[in-house]
Amino acid sequence: MRISVPDAAWRDRLADLDLEVIVWDGSTPQPDGYLDVALWPYDVAPTALAGIDPSRIGLVQGQSLGYDSVREFLPAGGRYANAVGVHEGATAELAMALLLTATRRMDEFGDAQRERTWAKHWAPGLIGRRIVLIGVGGIGSELMARLAGFGAVVVNVASTPRDDVHGIDELPALLSSADAVVIAVPLTESTVGLVDADFLARLPDGAVVVNVSRGKVVVTDAVVAEGGRIGFASDVFDPEPLPPDHLLWTVPHTIITPHVGGMSSSMATRVEALLRRQIGRLAAGQEPDHVVVA
Amino acid sequence: MRISVPDAAWRDRLADLDLEVIVWDGSTPQPDGYLDVALWPYDVAPTALAGIDPSRIGLVQGQSLGYDSVREFLPAGGRYANAVGVHEGATAELAMALLLTATRRMDEFGDAQRERTWAKHWAPGLIGRRIVLIGVGGIGSELMARLAGFGAVVVNVASTPRDDVHGIDELPALLSSADAVVIAVPLTESTVGLVDADFLARLPDGAVVVNVSRGKVVVTDAVVAEGGRIGFASDVFDPEPLPPDHLLWTVPHTIITPHVGGMSSSMATRVEALLRRQIGRLAAGQEPDHVVVA
Repeated sequence: MRISVPDAAWRDRLADLDLEVIVWDGSTPQPDGYLDVALWPYDVAPTALAGIDPSRIGLVQGQSLGYDSVREFLPAGGRYANAVGVHEGATAELAMALLLTATRRMDEFGDAQRERTWAKHWAPGLIGRRIVLIGVGGIGSELMARLAGFGAVVVNVASTPRDDVHGIDELPALLSSADAVVIAVPLTESTVGLVDADFLARLPDGAVVVNVSRGKVVVTDAVVAEGGRIGFASDVFDPEPLPPDHLLWTVPHTIITPHVGGMSSSMATRVEALLRRQIGRLAAGQEPDHVVVA
Repeated sequence: MRISVPDAAWRDRLADLDLEVIVWDGSTPQPDGYLDVALWPYDVAPTALAGIDPSRIGLVQGQSLGYDSVREFLPAGGRYANAVGVHEGATAELAMALLLTATRRMDEFGDAQRERTWAKHWAPGLIGRRIVLIGVGGIGSELMARLAGFGAVVVNVASTPRDDVHGIDELPALLSSADAVVIAVPLTESTVGLVDADFLARLPDGAVVVNVSRGKVVVTDAVVAEGGRIGFASDVFDPEPLPPDHLLWTVPHTIITPHVGGMSSSMATRVEALLRRQIGRLAAGQEPDHVVVA
């Protein structure tokens, strides 16, 4: 078996395996010969996938969970697996950081610290608050585990209702009593623009929207138009990167992180575990897991 | 029965009770006559307790958990109960906000947002990290509940070892492998100066100390002397308030909140529940709970 990894550190991680490991970072021409698996670099845009020869790569293993742009660029015949199980926990952790920053107003304490000012103020916090969590997949489950200890009332919403999960059609009624809404849905035709002007208008003053799914789930202009009536704490944006002159940067009660949900330094450990499982499956003649484009 | 509360809003909250409720905010002379309970204002310094006539107040009910300065000011014969069960959850919540701000470097994203800069960077996060939690009382228990879902290895330390709790004498050995230490101990003779130069020197580079107990548990100069080698995310300080010219404000990787652990706006609901329990106990001829100075 022959695989490629993005750098020498990755080759060292896999030194114990009985296979040929070459370094290819996706920015240079594809190496000669056949690759059973190409571990795609985390920080190279999916546009670079357009240049590969899919007949000579058994599986492109991505390091990201989202893959909405992969289908557009991967040549016909290519096979791409996303990184299930790698980022969900780290992304849920960032969602909690965003939610706590917004509801304990940590950003305002940061402003005061820059001015060396001791400025106490009250904040709503999470205890006894109603948190509407939209999406009960990988990130949603990790969010539920983290939210469980905070004394909030967590209301789960998903496209299909089930035990303890409300259907998305009940959402309008649930928003009017929400103190915070956390968005953890995949980007699909039915979630594009989910958080629009109507959605925001139903939320009470001072409610907070946290988005760790994809930027296009939220209509950015609608958030800007609220002018800070609703808090917005988000890791993903439309457009992304958010350009320096975008109005959103300075809307009050807006907290911006630059799409770093998965960028916990424990990530490589989890990618390695995933890659080793995939190699094991291929060596055993099994289909790889998590193939999302083929 | 006759009680005093700090403002008219408090009187309205208790309007259903069959007793005389007068308004006294502690900053004016004590009202004539006997008070079974005086609900002490949250934001009036304990120094004002020095002016009361303890023979005419059955119980001073504080709204804070800490009471280390009450003993100094309450006249002999006075009886003071602290606010057990009111702040522990909110303080643990702020500790989580501080811990996540430090370990996901939310402060640096805040800096970047001010400059409208999209600046990705990695951060250690909590998944798989070793968190040493010192103190397993009210705040410590609430912290354990909140930490449980984050995928960290939580190591509990208390003055007395027991099942799953290490004794404080084991602390030096535990610090060398800690990614974060959260301080949730009361201020006692044995915890004053617990986090000193020796303590900090044992921590690996980049570890984070979170303090939500009392300022004097940490030797501030020792933190300053580390110069940012250790992250310090704290709600309490020695001195407090931290003066504008204090060096700590600008030590790298320092996150400062101005003693707002209990300042979640859900606090009044919990103080009310405590006050009603105390009134009920007194009406039934029982001793009040949580009397810490008498």
